[in-house]
Amino acid sequence: ALAAPAIAQAAPKITWRVTSSFPKALDTIFGAAETMSKHVSEATDGNFTLQVFPAGELVPGLEAADAVSAGTVEACHTASYYFWGKDPTYALGCATPFGLNVRQMNAWLYYGGGIDLLNEFFHTQNLHYLPCGNTGVQMGGWYRKEINSLADLQGLKMRIGGFAGKVAEKIGIVPQQIAGGDIYPSLEKGTIDAAEWVGPYDDEKLGFYKVAPYYYYPGWWEGGPTLATMVNLDKWNELPPAYQAVIRAATEAANGNMMASYDQKNPTALKTLVAGGAQLRPFPQDVLSAAFDAAQATYAEISAANPAFKKIKDSQDAFKRDAYLWAQIAEYNYDTFMMVQQQAAKL
Amino acid sequence: ALAAPAIAQAAPKITWRVTSSFPKALDTIFGAAETMSKHVSEATDGNFTLQVFPAGELVPGLEAADAVSAGTVEACHTASYYFWGKDPTYALGCATPFGLNVRQMNAWLYYGGGIDLLNEFFHTQNLHYLPCGNTGVQMGGWYRKEINSLADLQGLKMRIGGFAGKVAEKIGIVPQQIAGGDIYPSLEKGTIDAAEWVGPYDDEKLGFYKVAPYYYYPGWWEGGPTLATMVNLDKWNELPPAYQAVIRAATEAANGNMMASYDQKNPTALKTLVAGGAQLRPFPQDVLSAAFDAAQATYAEISAANPAFKKIKDSQDAFKRDAYLWAQIAEYNYDTFMMVQQQAAKL
Repeated sequence: ALAAPAIAQAAPKITWRVTSSFPKALDTIFGAAETMSKHVSEATDGNFTLQVFPAGELVPGLEAADAVSAGTVEACHTASYYFWGKDPTYALGCATPFGLNVRQMNAWLYYGGGIDLLNEFFHTQNLHYLPCGNTGVQMGGWYRKEINSLADLQGLKMRIGGFAGKVAEKIGIVPQQIAGGDIYPSLEKGTIDAAEWVGPYDDEKLGFYKVAPYYYYPGWWEGGPTLATMVNLDKWNELPPAYQAVIRAATEAANGNMMASYDQKNPTALKTLVAGGAQLRPFPQDVLSAAFDAAQATYAEISAANPAFKKIKDSQDAFKRDAYLWAQIAEYNYDTFMMVQQQAAKL
Repeated sequence: ALAAPAIAQAAPKITWRVTSSFPKALDTIFGAAETMSKHVSEATDGNFTLQVFPAGELVPGLEAADAVSAGTVEACHTASYYFWGKDPTYALGCATPFGLNVRQMNAWLYYGGGIDLLNEFFHTQNLHYLPCGNTGVQMGGWYRKEINSLADLQGLKMRIGGFAGKVAEKIGIVPQQIAGGDIYPSLEKGTIDAAEWVGPYDDEKLGFYKVAPYYYYPGWWEGGPTLATMVNLDKWNELPPAYQAVIRAATEAANGNMMASYDQKNPTALKTLVAGGAQLRPFPQDVLSAAFDAAQATYAEISAANPAFKKIKDSQDAFKRDAYLWAQIAEYNYDTFMMVQQQAAKL
């Protein structure tokens, strides 16, 4: 008789609405929120339910953080860099040009104090941040003409999202904000010269290779973009500790799971794209070097005026220096050897 | 009045013992089982408890799978390749020479049908397999003298574990089975010429650099070793679905979390080792090529006699071919550029 109320209290019926910033068509990214939701429901015998809604159904994709901060919905699944216009510090929870790769992001977030540092900032926005997905290094987009040097980027009209555009314009690109569905006709008509989206699996569905066949890499502005589940801070604090733990485990599982999903889907899509006429090209070194310098200049400008940004960016940079020292040793040499075998058709 | 029994039934008090194959001193690997246990306990308000025991306390580390299969303990946290002597198929749940790297293992396991394929086999052993941790590419071990070519490996007495030894002996190495605590004195006395352990973080603690300073890479026999939680199959089947879901999410979270932990700890340890006198050396190409050929020959021999092994290995190989095609594009070029910046002290 005593035990029942305690159990009932520990497992209350709670339903939250989670607004995604993504359409269902981006099934891998949208799917990370569904993976999280499934884990949460299963782990609580259906007592704690996260209802995931695609962008636009409850709230437009780019207003997700505002809606959660205001408590209109309890949580969102989003890319925090969408909201860099409110404060560039938002971008550090997702990706900034030449930032940490996926393994480094995870190491910094879970063991390098990253989650706590980010939440110091996000709590000021009435948001609680939990990593929830990663795409890995993205591709550098589709171009109607070849890019042989930095000169070819001058005045190039390119669909490129958010914070990256701020760096891209420093090297001569004219960034354009265009929604996913409008990119193909814009490229076809030549209203724009280039467009970046995600990587082989998502890009294939939109068919860009038919109108802008040069497919450049790497996407230097998205080395390890981390998606996030952001929860209204008051709602987070009201949650029973067991449910907080369930969400933490579910987001952590979904975080790795989304990367695994892309790693399974991208190779096949890449082969299909190349068979369909996509021309793979590495960015020229002068493009990468100029972009790298432009990024550093951008960070210096922001850091001079924004202590929250500076504190988190400095932590990421310190982590990155050592991480890329170690990454050159065992991992890189193993992968290099295996790639040589792949090229020799020995795998 | 109706609800209380249903809830009580759904959240029964269950305590399992989990025997680890590792000592507490390997805190990162041992820690993955603790991470899993913590998530499970928190998610069930303490109703489902996994008590993790270090190797030797309940069961010797190398008898973990037998003990779980027999039901002596409910579960273990282990490296399934320890049990390759029972059947080489065990090794495919962890690592085989020139196998999948960490991202590829995760993609294959969670999206390429890997977990189900492995469980087809593990269920015949009365075990249920759940991925639970990864070290990433390991180092190639500590050598008293430099290895300048394959000739220098002939007759070399090396502490190298399990299945890898089967391939190593094909290229002239004389594999030695030596427990962790006995490696240092054996190297010091010259009873052995070389020894592999894990990577910078774990290797530093055992001090090998003082007696065998040449530290080779990459560990070609361990490209992405996956640790596993293996559960007695009857115990797994008896578990309420919600608790199965809790374990699945907890192991999936711990799987990524352990990699993040190593990625945070290895860079610092590497710097300390080099400062202490460790001499980093890449394996000569003829060593890697001979080892690769020896590995393929070994797989062909085993596959000819063991259909379960062949089925799983063929699936991993098919996955690997496409994965290493895609890995050469965005990820590799991004990392390469960043490593060049790291070497130029620009990060």
